[in-house]
Amino acid sequence: MDERLKKQLAFSLEIDKEKNIFRQTHLSGHGRNENDAEHAWHMAIMSWLLREYANEEVDIAKVMLMCLIHDIVEIDAGDTYAYDEEALKTQKAREEAAKERIFSLLPDDQKEALTALFDEFEENRTPEARYAHAMDNLQPLILNHSNGGSDWVEHGVTASTVYGRQKKTKLGSEKLYEVTDQIIRENIRKGVLPEGNLRKERD
Amino acid sequence: MDERLKKQLAFSLEIDKEKNIFRQTHLSGHGRNENDAEHAWHMAIMSWLLREYANEEVDIAKVMLMCLIHDIVEIDAGDTYAYDEEALKTQKAREEAAKERIFSLLPDDQKEALTALFDEFEENRTPEARYAHAMDNLQPLILNHSNGGSDWVEHGVTASTVYGRQKKTKLGSEKLYEVTDQIIRENIRKGVLPEGNLRKERD
Repeated sequence: MDERLKKQLAFSLEIDKEKNIFRQTHLSGHGRNENDAEHAWHMAIMSWLLREYANEEVDIAKVMLMCLIHDIVEIDAGDTYAYDEEALKTQKAREEAAKERIFSLLPDDQKEALTALFDEFEENRTPEARYAHAMDNLQPLILNHSNGGSDWVEHGVTASTVYGRQKKTKLGSEKLYEVTDQIIRENIRKGVLPEGNLRKERD
Repeated sequence: MDERLKKQLAFSLEIDKEKNIFRQTHLSGHGRNENDAEHAWHMAIMSWLLREYANEEVDIAKVMLMCLIHDIVEIDAGDTYAYDEEALKTQKAREEAAKERIFSLLPDDQKEALTALFDEFEENRTPEARYAHAMDNLQPLILNHSNGGSDWVEHGVTASTVYGRQKKTKLGSEKLYEVTDQIIRENIRKGVLPEGNLRKERD
């Protein structure tokens, strides 16, 4: 087998490990914790389904691939919970090292392509990255909402903190941010989410 | 929220259940059984990585989406193991009913689009479908091979049966069929796969 194909298959096997990286989100029906690979699969399909709500025109193939690979670095770096302040401080360095190791398994041209796509997502400056971030927020939100907001309750998260994170959705999709806002308000009304410092974050 | 978006979100939530459909394949490192959502995620990334080996030119966005949704019917119909002769007899009817129920959650245009894409995969007559089938075969093959062929041993599968299934790979990618053939031959040499009626299937 030639060197190029061997590298592509080695990378293909390596990413299997992403199925062992578990997130804080639980599956619908009060299921088990979700893993990164499932989350990425779900986001990619949703990105196709909901593309009419992206604020700007997007290259949907690029968005789907971005969704599929955006968490690969967590194979080494682990999942950092969106509301874990301590872990968030070291996240960048852990993920940079992981990115170098994992994408280096590929032939150079594909290493470059996927590293660029990963960085584009992280930098959040293109229409595709902004829309993919909306998916990264909306996908766990609908699961958590279907479970009565139990992931928020477990972590003692406030509405203010949720708005802080979910505001990125607005950059990718005004329309889906409306849904997000409705869901958060409903959970405040139900007493699932304490308000926190709401004035600061929501507006 | 308008009716269209409500339907799209209902479908998005429904497909979460695919994460609970487990396959016969085990994750690398002698891990647990793989589920359909993870399998689809893995196939979609591999389809992008290995697209240079497709026999014919393919629309890679179409292939990726096809990979992502090709097992959605198993939410109702369950996973049918490739070498389970009894289950294979009723698979078609079970999957047709599931397809109607699940895709009907979507707005009509998206129901039509995804049903057509699902059928295209099943009928295996387009370059995209043939290449996606190669991924559907290769992805579990590399996992199983990394585990010393333990999924084959568990089910008492012969090389003849494996060739019978894997020959579809050749229609999508001659190059990846060469890899497949090498892996099967290696497993025959190691005594993992008994030959069976090899002359009938391999050539």
